[in-house]
Amino acid sequence: MINRELIAPESIVIIGGSNNTQKPGGKIIRNLLEGKFPGKLYAVNPKETEVQGIPCFPDITSLPNTELAILAVPAAACPSIVEELASTRNTKAFIIISAGFGEETHEGFLLEQEILKTANKYEASLIGPNCIGLMNRHHRSVFTLPIPELDSRGVDLISSSGATAVYIMESAIGKGLRFNSVWSVGNAPQIGVEDVLEYLDRTYIPGESTPIKILYIENIKDPDRMLLHASSLIRKGCKIAAIKSGSSESGSRAASSHTGAMASSDLAVEALFRKAGIVRCFSREELTTVACVFNLKEIKGRNFAIVTHAGGPAVMLTDALSKGGMHVPELSGEAAQKLKEELYPGASVGNPIDILATGTPEHLEKAIDFCENTPEIDAIAVIFGSPGLVKVYDAYDVLHRKMEECSKPIFPVLPSVVTAGKEVEYFLNKGHVNFSDEVALATAVARVFNASKPTNGGIELYGVNVPEIRRIIDDIGENGYLPHNHVQSLFSAAGIPIVPEIVSSSKEELLKKARQLDFPLVAKVVGPVHKSDIGGVVLNIQSEEHLAFEFDRMMKLPEVTAIMVQPMLQGKELFVGAKYEPHFGHVILCGLGGIFVEILRDIASGLAPLSENEALSMIRSLRAYKMFRGVRGEAPIDEIQFAEIIVRLSTLLRFATEIKEMDINPLLATKKGIIAVDARIRIEKEAKNK
Amino acid sequence: MINRELIAPESIVIIGGSNNTQKPGGKIIRNLLEGKFPGKLYAVNPKETEVQGIPCFPDITSLPNTELAILAVPAAACPSIVEELASTRNTKAFIIISAGFGEETHEGFLLEQEILKTANKYEASLIGPNCIGLMNRHHRSVFTLPIPELDSRGVDLISSSGATAVYIMESAIGKGLRFNSVWSVGNAPQIGVEDVLEYLDRTYIPGESTPIKILYIENIKDPDRMLLHASSLIRKGCKIAAIKSGSSESGSRAASSHTGAMASSDLAVEALFRKAGIVRCFSREELTTVACVFNLKEIKGRNFAIVTHAGGPAVMLTDALSKGGMHVPELSGEAAQKLKEELYPGASVGNPIDILATGTPEHLEKAIDFCENTPEIDAIAVIFGSPGLVKVYDAYDVLHRKMEECSKPIFPVLPSVVTAGKEVEYFLNKGHVNFSDEVALATAVARVFNASKPTNGGIELYGVNVPEIRRIIDDIGENGYLPHNHVQSLFSAAGIPIVPEIVSSSKEELLKKARQLDFPLVAKVVGPVHKSDIGGVVLNIQSEEHLAFEFDRMMKLPEVTAIMVQPMLQGKELFVGAKYEPHFGHVILCGLGGIFVEILRDIASGLAPLSENEALSMIRSLRAYKMFRGVRGEAPIDEIQFAEIIVRLSTLLRFATEIKEMDINPLLATKKGIIAVDARIRIEKEAKNK
Repeated sequence: MINRELIAPESIVIIGGSNNTQKPGGKIIRNLLEGKFPGKLYAVNPKETEVQGIPCFPDITSLPNTELAILAVPAAACPSIVEELASTRNTKAFIIISAGFGEETHEGFLLEQEILKTANKYEASLIGPNCIGLMNRHHRSVFTLPIPELDSRGVDLISSSGATAVYIMESAIGKGLRFNSVWSVGNAPQIGVEDVLEYLDRTYIPGESTPIKILYIENIKDPDRMLLHASSLIRKGCKIAAIKSGSSESGSRAASSHTGAMASSDLAVEALFRKAGIVRCFSREELTTVACVFNLKEIKGRNFAIVTHAGGPAVMLTDALSKGGMHVPELSGEAAQKLKEELYPGASVGNPIDILATGTPEHLEKAIDFCENTPEIDAIAVIFGSPGLVKVYDAYDVLHRKMEECSKPIFPVLPSVVTAGKEVEYFLNKGHVNFSDEVALATAVARVFNASKPTNGGIELYGVNVPEIRRIIDDIGENGYLPHNHVQSLFSAAGIPIVPEIVSSSKEELLKKARQLDFPLVAKVVGPVHKSDIGGVVLNIQSEEHLAFEFDRMMKLPEVTAIMVQPMLQGKELFVGAKYEPHFGHVILCGLGGIFVEILRDIASGLAPLSENEALSMIRSLRAYKMFRGVRGEAPIDEIQFAEIIVRLSTLLRFATEIKEMDINPLLATKKGIIAVDARIRIEKEAKNK
Repeated sequence: MINRELIAPESIVIIGGSNNTQKPGGKIIRNLLEGKFPGKLYAVNPKETEVQGIPCFPDITSLPNTELAILAVPAAACPSIVEELASTRNTKAFIIISAGFGEETHEGFLLEQEILKTANKYEASLIGPNCIGLMNRHHRSVFTLPIPELDSRGVDLISSSGATAVYIMESAIGKGLRFNSVWSVGNAPQIGVEDVLEYLDRTYIPGESTPIKILYIENIKDPDRMLLHASSLIRKGCKIAAIKSGSSESGSRAASSHTGAMASSDLAVEALFRKAGIVRCFSREELTTVACVFNLKEIKGRNFAIVTHAGGPAVMLTDALSKGGMHVPELSGEAAQKLKEELYPGASVGNPIDILATGTPEHLEKAIDFCENTPEIDAIAVIFGSPGLVKVYDAYDVLHRKMEECSKPIFPVLPSVVTAGKEVEYFLNKGHVNFSDEVALATAVARVFNASKPTNGGIELYGVNVPEIRRIIDDIGENGYLPHNHVQSLFSAAGIPIVPEIVSSSKEELLKKARQLDFPLVAKVVGPVHKSDIGGVVLNIQSEEHLAFEFDRMMKLPEVTAIMVQPMLQGKELFVGAKYEPHFGHVILCGLGGIFVEILRDIASGLAPLSENEALSMIRSLRAYKMFRGVRGEAPIDEIQFAEIIVRLSTLLRFATEIKEMDINPLLATKKGIIAVDARIRIEKEAKNK
């Protein structure tokens, strides 16, 4: 519940407001005053009548009506204050910065719940408790420093952790990154990361609202809502990058001890981010660097030109771009030759374009113009530092002008943050960002360029027979692994090819039906658990006679009730599996079978339901993707059919949420196409209340 | 040739010295003066009699004898100046910062060669041309900024590129990194990176000389010398990190060529760094972060404790350490419980140890003491920033004291570089470094910890029959691929197991000898090129009768002169290959065969000769190393035997440098051990001058 009173209040009271700016209740007033909050400011503090120049009241009774209240008092005092403010002062928004709630004790959790109930009752917004607050262009209701430059085209930052928000800003400021809003949601009993995203989505006005969002998340409480609003924002033109920490086993333990919440499985997070189109980052530096990339014009293709006045950094940048799948193509031809003649002797134009340490601002301009006018180039990186001889204001003026004029994105690498610190600041003050390390830029560029496109949210039915799937699932009485015949029926309803099988206790019937199958066949006894141990599995049956012989032999084995026959297939092993993750729904995994999955953990994940494009993006993100092209004389694997099977499976699961775990193993890529040989499907139905 | 006059001159003249500090010849004097150079300083400039307060002479004739000359005049003027100074002014060291030499034109290259000849003739040191100069604690003969803090325990930086040296210092200064010397070697006709390393090695005094070296290299001219001195320095206790740029070009070349030819120069660099024990970095940020890790006490094991006052960064640090193979073990027990009681309510001690945002310096101290006294912990990371309420000098005092007192390395993560900028500076001024980003720290720590140990340089003969190898190689008349029987003899001399084979045109002999072999056998015709096409290969021969039958049949095929018989083996494919790289010698590659090498490029490289430890380190660095343990019911692979084969091969190659390329393919890990089935060996002998 995010309302106008929270975003742009006309009056704010700080409960526990203080003259002591070393205390949160003092610092937050200082920040509000320095931010020139235009509305009315009050404090409540029994010991003062005025605090930092603003009126202070001894208690709430004497306080005028106030739209937003910030609480900086002990946890135990908060519930009654919220109740009193909401019921008597018409307060419609609360920011509780105090700690000592659910993150510490069960008693604290109960206090938090009480406050939540009150806020909901009065339809009031609630940020926190246990947070640094909220800051936007209307008010700086945070008790921390630094305060970054606030700008309507700046970044929206949403963070589960207050300190991390602070340190993300520390990492952002030197890069020139500006902020539109900073949300620290703390324990988030009411407003969490998903709610802020939803709010930003619902209020988004293309061309007017700022398009860049960065997130630090420790726990995804409502994946569906995050997916819905993140992908919606991205389809509207936004760019979102996020850290979801706790990706390692120890990290997830650390995260759960920090927030008290169980971390979600990392493959589920991967899958969600892929579907939403969120760029995943793993450190504050990466996150703020990616946000800087977001600040520039969009990169339309993989081809970079590098304009530099120093060779070394350009070589490292070339290496790093290549490693990230971007290209630094060699440039030549008439225009390149003409550029070379306009530069100093010794300059090179083959890309990287080295205008030399002595290169002038005019050289820089000509080199950039050349790149802008070379059709095969999609983006330009400019490396320009200073060895400290002369000031480089004029070069940075040229860079600034070119960034405005050119249609292609230009990435500034200004490494001399000490020696040319003033000039870099001058450049940043024109609204730019800076990448002081060329390799960090390349890594961020590759992350952004290689990120998935957001889903459109629809389900592709592909003719999957949903009523039939429901009928099969509803008929199943017991939880556990599905019997083999049910697996066959489900796959058939979903249109997933599966090796046909014949089961019979009549020799005549079995032989008759077997004539329809492609030899060689496999025969297995039905009944005994350990089939192989009693000689109940026979491979490579080449003839009807052989089958007849084996039928007679096998039916005499103990506990055997029938014989099952299947064609024996050969092919490349693939893997598709799925797991139901609470809150996320089904996470679908795919990869090449065997060691690729088991040893190399080369697995892509996606969230059901999946579109063909998403399934293809999963397949293509595999390290072993080259195997699909056919290697070492092996036939290629039909990635389109593989994608179709993944999509069909995801649709099946979407309508059969009782399936908690499954894998097709093996799924064989044969000469005639991809086909499932066997699958394990575990269902678990909720106990019905009658 | 690095002499005392270059390192610590008593007098310096700047040819082209100027009052204009925007010019190199002016700035270098400014830097020398600001560095309080204690010796005599002169300038030569026909237009001045005094320059920045130092005596200036119109020409060299009037100049007193001077030990070191810095040339900042056009390239064409340099050769005669060097000759005149060396011959008449007893000048024994030159730094030429001017450009316009070999890096630009052939004429420039000739000037450079002339200067080299002169310098060598007079036994004078020559740094440059085309460089920023040399700076150490005696003199700051560079024309660039920034000038970092110079300290006898600081880093020695050697760079191929002047601008990159400058930008490395830009990246280093904010981290608190200090320098002992900075060498920009430029075109390096005389003194290159290897020469500086050799000098640092020869003059190294343990306990006195600074132990940390960082390198930026674009071209390794003399790999042997780099290996010799880098590994020698590291064995003496030094730590070396290096960027070798240009990895992508060779990487793509490697990708396009086939397995046997895959040893690219980048794999050679990998191999050299592995053998020397150099930590490889790919960006300036990484290099300076690794240098900061070097600054701290050595990490003895993988177990980290994290002490923090903020949850989020600790979670990200835990994730990143885990990803790098380090551990953040859960801590519990009596001591942990006692610590918890001493911290504020809500603090956690399970590791990360979160002392809370309100945690005091005393809490910090207790938490660190707990980690120091917990035997399973090897290293401690402390995250302590500031939200801007109070100054954190006292916390940083505690941190400083603990870093001195504790036996375990403590890594400071102080993220508030803006808000607590002054406190961070205060901390750095005590001689410390800072890791402002926790994930960058983790990455650097993992790189350092996982780096190889340096070689001891010896050759392990393992009973390899060197005279026999030489006899075989010397007997070979023609360049090209070795005939099969020579491959067998070479492997036998090197003690590398290879599948035995029998070749005969006599049925009786063949059958007799075949009785010694393990059935099943493979038979192949000898003579025809395309054996398979004419039915000249038969697998799985189970009996003598079958072999006799096939002999009769095969001998009738066209062009067949004899029949070759081998046991038919089954096993896991391994790969070992080697390529002779000019300057480097033999680069040995190993991996699991098939797709691991061809698709996943999962290859480790090492420089011949290899010790068993080096070979094991190669094997263990493979992504697929787990396969050696035995997976999916497969037998494990004997890594010790695999390492032995790699060592034997490397020894063989060391004594047969005529082998330019080879691969054992396949090398099979069978139930009875690892054995080569076939190998391609290409030799190329130099034409002999008679």
